[in-house]
Amino acid sequence: MANQYEKFSGRLISAIDGIINDFYRKKIANAPQSFIKEIYADIAEYCTRKGKRIRPVLLMAAYSGYKSGKKNENEMLLPAAAIEIMHSFLLIQDDIIDKALTRRGGDAMHVAAEKRYGRKKDGIGIDIASIAADVIFANALELTASADICNRARKRFLSVFAATYEKTAFGQILDILSSRPDKLNVSEDIPMQISAMKTAYYTIYYPMLMGCVLAMPENPEEKKRIEAFAIPLGLAFQIRDDILGVFGSEEETGKSTDSDIREGKLTLLVQSAFELLPPKKRREFSSRFLSAEKTEEDIRIIKAYISESGGLAAAKEKQAALLNEAKSALYNLSVSKSCKDILSCLPELIEVC
Amino acid sequence: MANQYEKFSGRLISAIDGIINDFYRKKIANAPQSFIKEIYADIAEYCTRKGKRIRPVLLMAAYSGYKSGKKNENEMLLPAAAIEIMHSFLLIQDDIIDKALTRRGGDAMHVAAEKRYGRKKDGIGIDIASIAADVIFANALELTASADICNRARKRFLSVFAATYEKTAFGQILDILSSRPDKLNVSEDIPMQISAMKTAYYTIYYPMLMGCVLAMPENPEEKKRIEAFAIPLGLAFQIRDDILGVFGSEEETGKSTDSDIREGKLTLLVQSAFELLPPKKRREFSSRFLSAEKTEEDIRIIKAYISESGGLAAAKEKQAALLNEAKSALYNLSVSKSCKDILSCLPELIEVC
Repeated sequence: MANQYEKFSGRLISAIDGIINDFYRKKIANAPQSFIKEIYADIAEYCTRKGKRIRPVLLMAAYSGYKSGKKNENEMLLPAAAIEIMHSFLLIQDDIIDKALTRRGGDAMHVAAEKRYGRKKDGIGIDIASIAADVIFANALELTASADICNRARKRFLSVFAATYEKTAFGQILDILSSRPDKLNVSEDIPMQISAMKTAYYTIYYPMLMGCVLAMPENPEEKKRIEAFAIPLGLAFQIRDDILGVFGSEEETGKSTDSDIREGKLTLLVQSAFELLPPKKRREFSSRFLSAEKTEEDIRIIKAYISESGGLAAAKEKQAALLNEAKSALYNLSVSKSCKDILSCLPELIEVC
Repeated sequence: MANQYEKFSGRLISAIDGIINDFYRKKIANAPQSFIKEIYADIAEYCTRKGKRIRPVLLMAAYSGYKSGKKNENEMLLPAAAIEIMHSFLLIQDDIIDKALTRRGGDAMHVAAEKRYGRKKDGIGIDIASIAADVIFANALELTASADICNRARKRFLSVFAATYEKTAFGQILDILSSRPDKLNVSEDIPMQISAMKTAYYTIYYPMLMGCVLAMPENPEEKKRIEAFAIPLGLAFQIRDDILGVFGSEEETGKSTDSDIREGKLTLLVQSAFELLPPKKRREFSSRFLSAEKTEEDIRIIKAYISESGGLAAAKEKQAALLNEAKSALYNLSVSKSCKDILSCLPELIEVC
């Protein structure tokens, strides 16, 4: 069954990477100064690192699924490529804030920039990388502007595009405000809110909505149906990421191992564990988890508590319930049969093995 | 004569500030969470601080000057407001990189964010401010998307918009790569290149080109004529800023006094002074200018050398020549008489008293 998604995305990933590669090849060839060539070479390498390309794939799947008349799929590859490079824009900023060193099997952008230019001034890598992210957002708009789309669809797309990065930015701000908390606060639903804004809306809902508004006029009812499918799916996706972030390998996640624990990321998984621990262990767990400088011993014990408390099992259970919710919401979507076949593979792909 | 510009811009500034205020008032009213309200309140205050609003004014002047048929000026206020808030996007990033504390008579955004949230984590102000900048760019796209513009004009506008922030970002990268140099290199034209990219193209050329492409189809000849006017004018504008950055007051510049000298900003003014000094004084000037930690004494002597070397006079001369160049290029523009009247005030406004 997962074949439908693999088949659809396999073809698309090459098409989208092809557009991104061509775009940057031209930028490098036409760069009037050598430092521009260098920056574009780094951006091109960064943007085309191996990845699932789930956001452009969902945009294209939704476009095909909602469009009834003449399809214009080739043109839609341009906004699809735009949101893929916008993902790099966000990853560069994320890694600066998280002080992460690696990304998608390579250097974080600020690390790459520090290696290239760091001899001049300490910390220059972060300055250069944050502006390279701005270059990428300008590139994303250029790709979008170049697509041959009718005025209404372009207007709708732009407004969903704006909403995407607005909501994601607020998710990131909430994440920053909640990380390294003074205490593990269990009364509020912050980890879930962050996951919704930074993952469910960003990765599933908005890409599907973009495909939808490129294909047809705004439809508030359908928007709600997309939300009912996308949000539980996205939250399940985030729980999988949270679990991999603690128990996965660097190879699986493309990030430094244990970085989530080291930076004190308050995930649903951590919150589940905290809630399930008896008071004494809860205090020990909290104090190790909240300490700014964690030893290897701290990390080992935090992991053991997450697992032994039943927090891991509870997170997996929550994930399964969310996936079931998404599966039933899928059938209400007004998309074509072939689009449903593609989307129905997602819960399977996301499940933790 | 400067009255024409003042009259035109006076009316426009209120209209643009009105749009920005209304936009953010709605954002604050509709914010689903209190931290979003707080961030939007800070963004609204920041974006509407007193300023010349030269970029939206030039966009509107060019639009009126190029448009021959039915004018749609109210709609154009939306993209004009968009580029004004994009200016805040860039200022926030500039101040983070320059470690500046004040801007336009208030706190730099990262300082404001640190005051609001800093008790939680040291350095959080920079993280929050950099993401608040992303919120602003999403807002700028939302404003643009909401304008009722025909498809071709919107496509052209978006592509100029993308080119604007691409070139400006590369100007910023060149600025970062050239600041705090190992030595004052006089063989290259780096300060001029940075001024062209970060000021002349960004502040004069692209806003005028945006107004032009919103008003009429792309015209490569006219683009060149805009460039011939905008680039010398913008460079003259930058020389004025460079002079004020060294000899102006915080009130005039809205930035911390002496920050340009402190951060070792390699301007055309500094380069002129360096070139005109005799070898021995040149070495002393260099060593004081290039030192990372400057004393009050260093700053006093650097200022004296810039003035006594004849560097200040040379910069003023260069500025006068550039303004003359802009004045003659103005007459070749295919804009209406009233637009020429407005634009012809600019050289006067920019001249150093």
